Parts: sequence; C-alpha cells; structure tokens
Amino acid sequence: MASNSLGNLFKIISFGESHGSGIGVVIDGLPANIEIDLEQIQKKLDERKPGSSDIVSPRKETDQFEILSGLYEGKSTGSPLSIWIPNTDQKPQDYDKLKNVFRPSHADFTYLKKYGIRDHRGGGRSSARITAGWVAAGAIAEQLLKNSGIEVISYVSQIYTHKIPDNLSIEQLRESKNPLRCPHADTAMSIQQSIEQAIKDKDSLGGIVSTQILNCPIGLGEPVFEKFQAKIGQAIFSLNAVKGLQFGGGFEMSTKKGSEVNDEWQTVDSQFKTKTNFSGGLQGGISNGMPIIFDVAFKPVSTIGKPQQTLDTAGNTITLTASGRHDPCVVPRAVPIVSALTWLVLADLWLMGNIKPN
Amino acid sequence: MASNSLGNLFKIISFGESHGSGIGVVIDGLPANIEIDLEQIQKKLDERKPGSSDIVSPRKETDQFEILSGLYEGKSTGSPLSIWIPNTDQKPQDYDKLKNVFRPSHADFTYLKKYGIRDHRGGGRSSARITAGWVAAGAIAEQLLKNSGIEVISYVSQIYTHKIPDNLSIEQLRESKNPLRCPHADTAMSIQQSIEQAIKDKDSLGGIVSTQILNCPIGLGEPVFEKFQAKIGQAIFSLNAVKGLQFGGGFEMSTKKGSEVNDEWQTVDSQFKTKTNFSGGLQGGISNGMPIIFDVAFKPVSTIGKPQQTLDTAGNTITLTASGRHDPCVVPRAVPIVSALTWLVLADLWLMGNIKPN
Amino acid sequence: MASNSLGNLFKIISFGESHGSGIGVVIDGLPANIEIDLEQIQKKLDERKPGSSDIVSPRKETDQFEILSGLYEGKSTGSPLSIWIPNTDQKPQDYDKLKNVFRPSHADFTYLKKYGIRDHRGGGRSSARITAGWVAAGAIAEQLLKNSGIEVISYVSQIYTHKIPDNLSIEQLRESKNPLRCPHADTAMSIQQSIEQAIKDKDSLGGIVSTQILNCPIGLGEPVFEKFQAKIGQAIFSLNAVKGLQFGGGFEMSTKKGSEVNDEWQTVDSQFKTKTNFSGGLQGGISNGMPIIFDVAFKPVSTIGKPQQTLDTAGNTITLTASGRHDPCVVPRAVPIVSALTWLVLADLWLMGNIKPN
Amino acid sequence: MASNSLGNLFKIISFGESHGSGIGVVIDGLPANIEIDLEQIQKKLDERKPGSSDIVSPRKETDQFEILSGLYEGKSTGSPLSIWIPNTDQKPQDYDKLKNVFRPSHADFTYLKKYGIRDHRGGGRSSARITAGWVAAGAIAEQLLKNSGIEVISYVSQIYTHKIPDNLSIEQLRESKNPLRCPHADTAMSIQQSIEQAIKDKDSLGGIVSTQILNCPIGLGEPVFEKFQAKIGQAIFSLNAVKGLQFGGGFEMSTKKGSEVNDEWQTVDSQFKTKTNFSGGLQGGISNGMPIIFDVAFKPVSTIGKPQQTLDTAGNTITLTASGRHDPCVVPRAVPIVSALTWLVLADLWLMGNIKPN
Repeated sequence: MASNSLGNLFKIISFGESHGSGIGVVIDGLPANIEIDLEQIQKKLDERKPGSSDIVSPRKETDQFEILSGLYEGKSTGSPLSIWIPNTDQKPQDYDKLKNVFRPSHADFTYLKKYGIRDHRGGGRSSARITAGWVAAGAIAEQLLKNSGIEVISYVSQIYTHKIPDNLSIEQLRESKNPLRCPHADTAMSIQQSIEQAIKDKDSLGGIVSTQILNCPIGLGEPVFEKFQAKIGQAIFSLNAVKGLQFGGGFEMSTKKGSEVNDEWQTVDSQFKTKTNFSGGLQGGISNGMPIIFDVAFKPVSTIGKPQQTLDTAGNTITLTASGRHDPCVVPRAVPIVSALTWLVLADLWLMGNIKPN
Repeated sequence: MASNSLGNLFKIISFGESHGSGIGVVIDGLPANIEIDLEQIQKKLDERKPGSSDIVSPRKETDQFEILSGLYEGKSTGSPLSIWIPNTDQKPQDYDKLKNVFRPSHADFTYLKKYGIRDHRGGGRSSARITAGWVAAGAIAEQLLKNSGIEVISYVSQIYTHKIPDNLSIEQLRESKNPLRCPHADTAMSIQQSIEQAIKDKDSLGGIVSTQILNCPIGLGEPVFEKFQAKIGQAIFSLNAVKGLQFGGGFEMSTKKGSEVNDEWQTVDSQFKTKTNFSGGLQGGISNGMPIIFDVAFKPVSTIGKPQQTLDTAGNTITLTASGRHDPCVVPRAVPIVSALTWLVLADLWLMGNIKPN
Repeated sequence: MASNSLGNLFKIISFGESHGSGIGVVIDGLPANIEIDLEQIQKKLDERKPGSSDIVSPRKETDQFEILSGLYEGKSTGSPLSIWIPNTDQKPQDYDKLKNVFRPSHADFTYLKKYGIRDHRGGGRSSARITAGWVAAGAIAEQLLKNSGIEVISYVSQIYTHKIPDNLSIEQLRESKNPLRCPHADTAMSIQQSIEQAIKDKDSLGGIVSTQILNCPIGLGEPVFEKFQAKIGQAIFSLNAVKGLQFGGGFEMSTKKGSEVNDEWQTVDSQFKTKTNFSGGLQGGISNGMPIIFDVAFKPVSTIGKPQQTLDTAGNTITLTASGRHDPCVVPRAVPIVSALTWLVLADLWLMGNIKPN
Repeated sequence: MASNSLGNLFKIISFGESHGSGIGVVIDGLPANIEIDLEQIQKKLDERKPGSSDIVSPRKETDQFEILSGLYEGKSTGSPLSIWIPNTDQKPQDYDKLKNVFRPSHADFTYLKKYGIRDHRGGGRSSARITAGWVAAGAIAEQLLKNSGIEVISYVSQIYTHKIPDNLSIEQLRESKNPLRCPHADTAMSIQQSIEQAIKDKDSLGGIVSTQILNCPIGLGEPVFEKFQAKIGQAIFSLNAVKGLQFGGGFEMSTKKGSEVNDEWQTVDSQFKTKTNFSGGLQGGISNGMPIIFDVAFKPVSTIGKPQQTLDTAGNTITLTASGRHDPCVVPRAVPIVSALTWLVLADLWLMGNIKPN
C-alpha cells in the first residue's frame, strides 16, 4: 500500500491505468524557478509512445500531456508539478474476453488474488502504459539537471541473440536514433529481421537495454540503503518485464579474480581516474566520477499471438490466442523508460547530495 | 542523508562502524508479543562471523550481541527492539598505513570526496562488518514469520568458474551446511581448491549466491515501486560487492522468445500453479505462489595481497600490498547476509500484505 | 520539499493551486474493494465550497470532481485513487494589483522569499482552496471506515466572543446543520449578527472549531512520534489560519492539580471507562475508548476590506484595500475541513492498527 | 508501527525504556564534519535529568552518555551518530505492585490493550525518561546550527495559576536559569510555594512552557504538510502530558477581528518587518524573519501520592496510592525537552531549506 511513489526529495507519485481516463504523475520536490521546456517533455513521450513504427504496438496514443499544476509563467514554483496524459485510444472491449482469464506471465492472477478485484482492461495498473507518466517526470528531472553536465545514454545492446560489439565508442552509443535504438547498424539489421520473423510467428523477443551515465559528479549516492545502485535497483525492478540488472563488470565478475577486476587509481590530467571501470563508476554506493554503467535484461513480452494453454478464473483449462494490440518486442520502447528512471534517481540523489548546511 | 534505514513497516536502522565500538541495529515496527529466540539470533551471527574456518578472515569477533531494548519477559513489546554487537577484535593500527591511500575498488576515494572526512579504520561505515546488525535483524524477521510456512534457502551456486549443476533438488539445496555453503560436493571441492590457490596467490575470487523462497503466500509485493523484486533490488544492491541480480530466468530470458519462457497456468491438486517458473515466482511485482528465485553476483573481494599500483590522497602513485585481515572469497559468508536481507524484505511485505481494514 | 503528502499507509498527495486549472489529490494506500459513494464525496465538497450563503465568499465554484483513476465498477482497486476538481470561477485578474504587494498576515512575503517566485493569483498554493482536495480525500477515508462505527462530529464552538455553552448533548452537537455549523441556536444568532457587522465593517472574525470522535476503538495511535495527537497536530497545523490546538482539558489543565484532572478508571456495563475525560480520549498517544476531543483555534481571515498599510515588494509603503472575493469568517467553512483531516488521520491510524501479522 | 523516528533529513530514531538497560537515539542525517562538543550534550542532559533539586523526582540518574557510532576525531562523519544513556538507578521493584493496575491518566490501559503486553516498569516506553535521548539529539541539532545565528529560548511562563507578566524583555526570558526555569522572580517564588504545597498535599501541578526562536532565517518550513507549525505540532504532541499548543496570538486570536491582529509590513533599517507579531513569525507555514513564538500546555503529572480509585486489569476497583519516584511538577524539566524538540525541527527544516540544486 502507498507504494506508488519513488524518491525522497525529488519524489514522483504515479497514478492512472491503461484503459481508464488517463495516466498521471505528480512531482513533489521539484525546486522552484526551473524553466520547463514543454516540447522536450513531449519529445520524450513521443519516444516511448506506441504506434510510432511498424514493429511496435499499433495502439495510437497521441500522448499529449497537460500540466495540471506547479507551473507559473514557464517556471516551476516549488509546488507540486503534476502532469496528466489522457488515454485517447483505449479499446477496453478488446479485453472483454480476458476478463476471466489468467494470461501466462501476466499479472492477472496475482492482482486478482491480492486485491480481490481486477481492472482487466489492458492490464489496468500493471500495464506498461503507466510509464508514460514516468517518462514525463523523467524529462523534468533531466531539465532540473540541465546545467549539471550529466548525460544519460541508454540504448539497445541486445535483442534476442543479437548483441552489439563491445568496442563501440561513446559517439556511436549516443547515436542510437533508429527505431530500434540500437547503436550498431549490422546488429540493428539482424534484430529487425528477427522482430519481423517474430511478428510472423506471433511471438515476442527479449533483450537488454544498457545505460551509461557520463559526467556524473563524484559523490552521488547515499550509504547504506540509498546507495546509487540500490536506488537504481529499486527503480529499475519496478519496471515491467525486467528480469536482471548488473553494474559495471556485472555477473561476469563472479567468475573472476580480484587481481583481474580491481580498478587501480591513476591520475589523468591531474584528475583521479581508475585505469579500468569494472566498478561501473560506483564504489561504496557512491559515484566515483567514472562512467556509471548498467545493463537491464528484459524478458520477451508475455502477450503473444501463438495459442497458449492456461486457466480461467474458475480453474478451467482454456486455449488463449491473444488479439489486442501489443509489441512483439518492447525493448526499444523501454530505452526512454530506463533513461527516465535513471534521471529520476539522479535528480533525487542530486538534491540529496546538494544539501549545504553551512 | 538519512539513508541508513530499510523497510517501511518492519524498518531497520543500521548504525556502527567496523573499528568503532560496535555495530548496532534498531528494529522499529516489530509487532508485539513475538517470542524472541536469542540463541537463534546468535546462530545466524555465527554463520556470518569471520574466523570460523581457514578460508575466511582471521579476524576473531565473537559477535556476541546484547538486546538493548524492546524485549520484556522474552517477548517483543511493540517498542523498538535494538541490538548491539560490540567490536572486540578491531585492530585499527592495521589500517594506519592506509589512512592516506585510495585502495583499488574500495570506497576510500568516494567516502573521502563525498564527506570530506573518512574513518579509514577497516573501511568504517563502508565495511561489510555492519552487516552483522542486518543478520541479527534478519533473524528476528525470520522469527516473526515463523508460523508463515515461508522458507528461505540461500546457497553458493558458483564461485570463480565453478558452478553447481542445474538439476539439484530442494533437499540438496537446503543442505548447504559446509563452510562453503555449496550444496554440491564436487563443486564444493573444486571451489575449495580454487580458494586455497587464491590464498597462495594472494588473490580473491567472486561468485554467486542463489536464493529460493518457498511457500511464500500469494500476494506479497506492492505495486508499483514496492514490487517484490524492487524491494529485493534495493536491499541486495545495498550489500557491498554485489554487481548483479536476476530473478527467475534472468539475463538468459533476454535471448528468448515469449513462447519459450511464458509460464502457462495449470491446476495441480486444485491449486493454481505455473507449468514452468521463468517468472521466478513474481508477476506484476507480486508473489504468485511459486518459488521466488533470484541470483546475486558478487565481485571478488577488493582487498588482495598482490601488489597493486594506486594513488594516495595527494595523488602520488604508490604500490599497495594489503596486509590487514580479509577473506579470499566472501561469497560463502555472504549467504547468511543475503538470506537475512531476504527475510527483512519478506517481513516488511508481510506486514504490508496483512493490513486488514475490515 | 516533497512536503505535499500526509499519512503513511492511507497517504494523500495534494496538488493544484487556487487560480490554476484545478485542485487535485491522489490517495495512495486505499485498500481494494471499498465501495465509493460519489454523491457522498460531492456532499462533503458542497459543505466546504464557497458561494453557499451570504456570509461566505461569493466565489462560485461548483466543485464538481472527477475520479481520474483507481475506481473500477464502483469500487476501489488497490491502485491510487485520484480526484480532480477543476477551477471554474477563478478570476486571476482580481489579483493583478496584488502581484507586487505583501498582504498583511498572508503568505505573500514568505513564499516569494523562499521560492524566489510566486503565483500571486489567489494565493496560489497557499490558498485554502487546496483543501477541496483534502475534503474529497477525507470523504473517502470516511467511507473506508464506514463499518468501524467511528463518528466524527465537528462544529463551531465559538466565533468572535460568542461561545456555545459547555453542557450541550452529543445529539445537539451532531445537529450543527445551519450555515454557521453552530449547534446552539442563541449563540448562532449572536454569531450571525457579528458576522453581518463584520461585513459592514469590512472586517473579519476568528473562532474555534471543536471535534469529538465517538466510538473510536481502543488502541489507535502509534507511539512515540505517531501518537494520535501528534498526527492530528501535524494535520491540523497544516491548515491555514490555525493558531492553536488543544486536547481534552487543554490549556485549562495547565492551571490545575493532578487530583483535579486525573481520569480514574471505573467499569460501566463491564466496560473500562474513565469517570472524567480530561485526557480527551488519549493516553500515551493511544485512544482509550472514550470520546477523543479537541479544539482548533482559527485567527480571523487576513483578507479584509478595511484599508491597511503594508509594503510592496520594492519596500514602498502602500495602502491596501482588499477587493477580491473572500469570507468575513472562515470558521464555519473550516468545519468540514477539520472533519476531513480527522478522517484522514483516523484512516491512517486505522490501517496501522489493523496490521495482523499472524 | 515504525513510529519511533522524527524528521526527514535530520532524522532521529528513539529507542529504550525507562527501566530497561538504557535509553538510546540514532541520528541519521547529520552532515559530516560537524564538530561535536560532548560537554555541551552532557550539559543539556543535566538540565533534563531528575534528582537535580528538591522539587523534582529523586531518581538519581547520572545520565552519562556514550557515543556509539558516527564520531571520528571529534567530528561527525556523515554516518549515523548514535548515543546510549545507560539507566543506572532504575528500581523496577518499585513498580511490582503496579503490574496489574491501570493508573489514572497514564498509558497503562492503552498500552496493554494495544499491544497485549506491557512493560509496566516505570511506564516502559511511555515514560518521559525516553526524552533523554531526544535531549541529546537536540543538543547535536543545536551544534549543527551553531553558525546559523538561531537562538531558542524556552522558559516556564506559567505553573498552576501563576503566570509571568507579558512584558518581559528577551534578556529576561533568556535568563531563566533558576531550577524553575521561570524568568520572573516573583512568579517563580509563588510557583515554588505552590509546588512545596503540592508536595505536602501529595499532588501535582500543570503549567506552560513558552518558546521564542530568534533570528530564524526567512524561509524555513515546507508547505503544505511540513509547515513549520505542522512539524512543531507533530514533535510537541509526541511529548507526554502536552495538552495544548498555540502559535503567536494563539487561542486568543479566535476572539478577535482581522483588523486587530493582522500583521502589517513595514521596513525597519531597510529590513522587512511586521509591526506586530500575532502570526508568531510564521506565514503560510514558513518563517518570516520575526520571532517564532509558541506555548505548550502541560497537564499536571498523573502520578500523585493522594489515594485514587481506579481499576486493576481484572476490572476490580482498587485504591491506588503512588509511591515510586516522581515529580510534583514536570514543567521546569520539560523546558530543555521542548527546546530540544524545537532544535530537532529546526535542523530538519534547515537541511530541507538548504538544498541548493544549482
């Protein structure tokens, strides 16, 4: 209960459902006098929204938002800034036949058992549609940190078995502007083919979104239970379909010796830098000035057109063939969401790190 | 700031440093009338404590605890239960030569830069020694849930390149009682040899701790930002040396198709069960009654005896050869800590899930 | 910052401004399956809204609300229930001449100095108009507790120098249905005359709202910093114009001896009752089953038509004669707000008190 | 549950019981590099402790504290600073005969009913002894704000029917150093006589502690639910025996017209000042630079030597004649506690107000 807010100082409260009247978010803790660029918010929402290409859900949401409060003459006032994104293309009747069905790997069963009631229309509150609010809030977090120099680069590093090479430059990672948000053209082409095949097969594909945070100042992250990675951990695992998260050298480091993956310090232009970055920019939960690096693993979308055997609420075995509108691969659309969550964590840690008592 | 508490309803506040007078924890939110088994707490602390075998740190802490408050005639009173574990074998002088050194992959640099002051003795607050308090609190969380039927099984599933087979039974996993906490004898033997070699090489090894939560009632986990996995994510990434976390099918699922990893529902003895458990017991952030499964990747301990080049606080390059007392492989000792954090999350979600308004 | 939420388990987040597009509230923590009576919410809003009689502000707000989320087939779903109350009769131009004025005893000066920016239109976020959201949320809190037997009676016990007698019965207090919400006819008549005189004088009047909570179950309130009175204290002092709060015997008890005001226990029909109730139903911060009694003192409305000397933002002395629309006496309209805040605290404590771990 | 912490950024966690092993407090959120003056902490504890004169409880607690964590070379480290005050003069046997008694106006009944278990020894957790921890933490809050210029003056303004004159100067208020903490000699003498009479009568007396916060910078307080007065409200009503709280003109303002109590702005030495200060230094929940003024009403101590009729836990009527050690009038000893709570709120608001995002 009372579990729909994220952050301490830069706090968002998320509300709304997939097929209700819309999706909302309140930002409580936005400092005053921040210029808000509305077009920039819309641009981020457009990156997330469905219907933008032939490989994503055909649901046509314009995702045009309104600012309900907290803005005065283009600037934040210190009061809660709230955003409302009306649902315009909901088709709840698409879901009528799902009213009594427990879809495989969806939250149907758990929501019904937990709450004794379920808004089955499009997943209700468990729908990824609610992340529209997070993306809008993340855009504002980014604007708060506009002058910080921090840059967040999120991109598709893998879909299905297609993985980008390890040696791409920051410039290449930054230029993941294609619909697949994949920075490597050859890999993107293979992914495109696999997605097209998955559409034909009425199947779906998983993948990985990777993130680099550049120019993060030294000192962000609050030991011990608000460590940088702990806050990313909470935020990222709040996102549907995420099954794994790793920082820096990640799972691979579990197979290594300390002498292989310790990050020795050196000076570069009189700056303290580590020679390697297996730590992923974080030590003791605090940013050390090196790029903060993490990878987020997504399972394939659970909604598939292939027939599946499952149960209805009465316990009868049924064969389910999804219609509705859904993505064969949600990973490219997850890129702006991972990025937004990262900005939200950054803004919260930024404010925590900028308390100047004297 | 104010980042040393974990949980909402079953809340712990952690305090103390490695080489100060001791380690403490306050539990705020323990319901009244819970019988507290002090021996059981000690047993858990003994599992975590150093000095227990030749492959762990020779620091000899008895880790004998005192209950400072909250206990009356053997039962909790509803008031904060606090525990104090005095440090008895600290040797801060071991660390004198580290006062001005930034050890590779330690929190020395980040703590000093963030706070402008650093208790360098044994890592101070960034030391894993503070987890003694977490383990004691976790033991109490477990006692709170004694009648819930929930069982938490944590074990070493991999150290260095040695990985247990996938097909071990629950009975085998449960019997990870050797000092390595590894449920598979052959793998344990290989690990033992690698650790002995690492000691000779003055090196360290990483590994993975896996956990299964059995008999978790359906409905634990609070959407959206207090999802079961989000809370595990926050708790686990608060633990030193953790570089990765995955649930159920984990990272592997990013390479799969939906049709391969969707968990279809069936009835087994009139119970709703999924045929497979790639979801790891969690859907929409809520437990579905299947085993909750996750893996935690640990990097090798950063303190190694091998000479390393690094910097002192003045920016001079120095060669560091660690003496002090430390573990060649912290992964077996991490098992009771991962288990304790799991119990802490469970207790918090249990209380949240057991609010009965009518 | 992040200071716009109240409550832990039954948590409300307030947003919106007086002369923005509307007023909103999110309830995070409403249990699922609560039937929501929309008419009842409207009725409560109507009790608070301006324009309802000739002694209150002539601003004509219909205060018709929309449920934005969290309701499905007439019941709560366990997801955030959010409410939006559009502003329809805002006349920001009324406030143009106040843009650079610091009105006496208003928040103009403090908001501008704190935030460096101020939405001067109708007080912006500092306006009592934002309490419309609290009243709507309070109506839902009341519905959550519908079967609890708890009754909240708030009424005007004093305006200006006119005070109701001490010996009114519960039945009389309950029947404060006149526009003045004053349970005593003679006192109400005197108040009415004084208010009419104040209107003529372009002045305003203060007063006291008293509250009795009946049938509150024993055991609500969480020691030590979430004591019943501490939570009422936080909630009530969040309300504009409140200058004092007292429980039970209140300030008068400071002039007494213990033997005069101690509440001795006796049994009445085998129930434990206190002979007197100077404690106001609370001992150790916990409800004891007796009526919970408190009084809230309101200063006179700061906006008056009489000329006042004050400063503009440049520091020039100016003479201010308020036009705008405002109440000569806000105390009757404060009754449903005090009542709503009481229900919000009750709902939060109710959920906290109904965690059943076993 | 989880109700033993106060504050968001400067957060204290209180633990311990009257007749357990001691009283503790953890400060989570103390910034690093604050010099901690241990003698100053002891001095504040000495002001609160019993046994200091013939008009207070004869319990002889030395209240000598230990710092358990968070201090390094005399300075805070940014880690939790925790303090432990052992109980040394507890005489739990004094309370044996109270084990099954519900003392009038004590928390005996409510604690037992709420928790089903009660540490009856000296009131356990409901004892005012736990405020020793608050006073220690308050002393540290004060040291954090040492350079802020803020001054907190708390004093006894009334005991029983003896009230100090209204026209005392700040200098006089500041000099309330007698055991009665009363700034006016004649009033103090009358109070002394009444207390001596109360001792003879085996009775107790109530009173009022007043506070002025001087030089508080403009802008402290966070609308809307963390208003300055809302936070003071929560903190002060967490203190035993408090029955009332008022700010500035207080309850008296409820009998006034706006034209009588509005605070008009003027410039004094080019500073914005109000001509009067009925607002008590707070407007819209934010400090306006004028003295912040509030009064706290205490009921008489509930423990009296006079025989009282009450019930035991079985519902039998008994006659209770208190022995044990207790104060005839707790109000003078409440002065350092009110002051400490004020500093705790100030420190929290200070940190909130000093987040500098750019």
